[in-house]
Amino acid sequence: MKIVLIGAGNVATHLGIALQKAGCLVLQVYSRTEESASVLAARLSADYTVVPDEIRRDADLYIVALKDAVLPQLAPILAKGREQALFVHTAGSMPMDLWKGLVERYGVLYPMQTFSRQREVDFNAVPFFIEASSPAEVELLRMVAARLSPKVYEATSCQRRYLHLAAVFACNFANHMYALSSHILEKQGIPFEVMLPLIDETAGKVHELSPVQAQTGPAVRYDKNVISKHLEMLADEEPLQELYEKISKSIHHLPWSAVPANEGKNNS
Amino acid sequence: MKIVLIGAGNVATHLGIALQKAGCLVLQVYSRTEESASVLAARLSADYTVVPDEIRRDADLYIVALKDAVLPQLAPILAKGREQALFVHTAGSMPMDLWKGLVERYGVLYPMQTFSRQREVDFNAVPFFIEASSPAEVELLRMVAARLSPKVYEATSCQRRYLHLAAVFACNFANHMYALSSHILEKQGIPFEVMLPLIDETAGKVHELSPVQAQTGPAVRYDKNVISKHLEMLADEEPLQELYEKISKSIHHLPWSAVPANEGKNNS
Repeated sequence: MKIVLIGAGNVATHLGIALQKAGCLVLQVYSRTEESASVLAARLSADYTVVPDEIRRDADLYIVALKDAVLPQLAPILAKGREQALFVHTAGSMPMDLWKGLVERYGVLYPMQTFSRQREVDFNAVPFFIEASSPAEVELLRMVAARLSPKVYEATSCQRRYLHLAAVFACNFANHMYALSSHILEKQGIPFEVMLPLIDETAGKVHELSPVQAQTGPAVRYDKNVISKHLEMLADEEPLQELYEKISKSIHHLPWSAVPANEGKNNS
Repeated sequence: MKIVLIGAGNVATHLGIALQKAGCLVLQVYSRTEESASVLAARLSADYTVVPDEIRRDADLYIVALKDAVLPQLAPILAKGREQALFVHTAGSMPMDLWKGLVERYGVLYPMQTFSRQREVDFNAVPFFIEASSPAEVELLRMVAARLSPKVYEATSCQRRYLHLAAVFACNFANHMYALSSHILEKQGIPFEVMLPLIDETAGKVHELSPVQAQTGPAVRYDKNVISKHLEMLADEEPLQELYEKISKSIHHLPWSAVPANEGKNNS
């Protein structure tokens, strides 16, 4: 399986290294910026280019890991002269059909995970969502993904954009809650480290209980005493105060947050 | 060390069982509701009562794990005739001084964790924050807490209420983000289970990176394409849409969210 990577960001980097380790051959890396292209290419002992015309034409699979905004512009350029190849993108929110009419064989390989440059990824725990233009390509993508992870699922473009939206809440927004927590502690000179056991337990709980069952805290039991004290404490940080209020209301009022009394009492 | 537990909710239950296991003797459980008092007492082979006057007077330590709203009303009743005993509460937001003038020896034993009835707690990973009316009582509480956890810290009432506020963000609000994620998936017939690896990695990342460094997603790179698509997808759920917008803005705009370019690119 000869692969060309289009993009050299975090997704392309982590995916490229993992695929190489799994026995695939990354021929070439394309990126608009020479530095990122050359750094990733060196790690993979591959060629690189910053010129779309110089992207090789003999790969079996083109994995396109670019920002959503760039993808529709670049797709026709990538497709030209490579109409027989299989093109897939890794973005959760982009529909498969952006390749329709450009190439014959196309699909999506969406690894639902958060990738940071500074942290290794255990692909074994990453669910892959695949979709392709025909059953043969689905099977091919399943084989590729299965080299990296035991969790490979088929998902339509419509399902995938909801997966991505749900991932924004569970990952990006949850992480922002950590960031706000860290900010509050920092102002008091308390190291964020003390919060890690609670963060771990909060994540661990939803393996056993649904998030609605797992919900604890002043908002779910609507403890007005605590809530109004907390809002006072945030008086000098208006945006934070507003978020505290909106999220507390969402916990308390939204129908899917309804929990039976006593199920959700807690100490935080 | 003879203990009376005031309260029979999740905190009292988990704490009582752990203390008993650690060699303390729980003499009695008090709760306003007979059912919860008797259930916990049976688990601890202790007595129980629902009448404040019948609470025993011969314990070394009274651990008060009640809702914040109830605590100030009940404290004087508990104190009466037990002025020589050591009283501590477990609530993060209540100041130690609520005991001042009522009893001579008092303090706080705040286990910063989320406790649900249905899930066991590993106290070994729970940080305890202690505070007391005199150094002798601090040492006594340190000894008690150290039987349960290696992580025992002294914290003032002021620090503790900020710890509690920070815990609401890192735990309660993060969990609500899981709940909203689960709700979005449920409407599409996708099991929440697929989100667990991402949730685990999101929690795992902040052991290595600060939450600001760990931030990924459309909001941090301000990918307007994705953000406006997501807002459209939430058009029929106005409160959710509003939260999406506010949290995205908070990620993007607030000063503590500033990350250097390329540090925070991601796939979710």
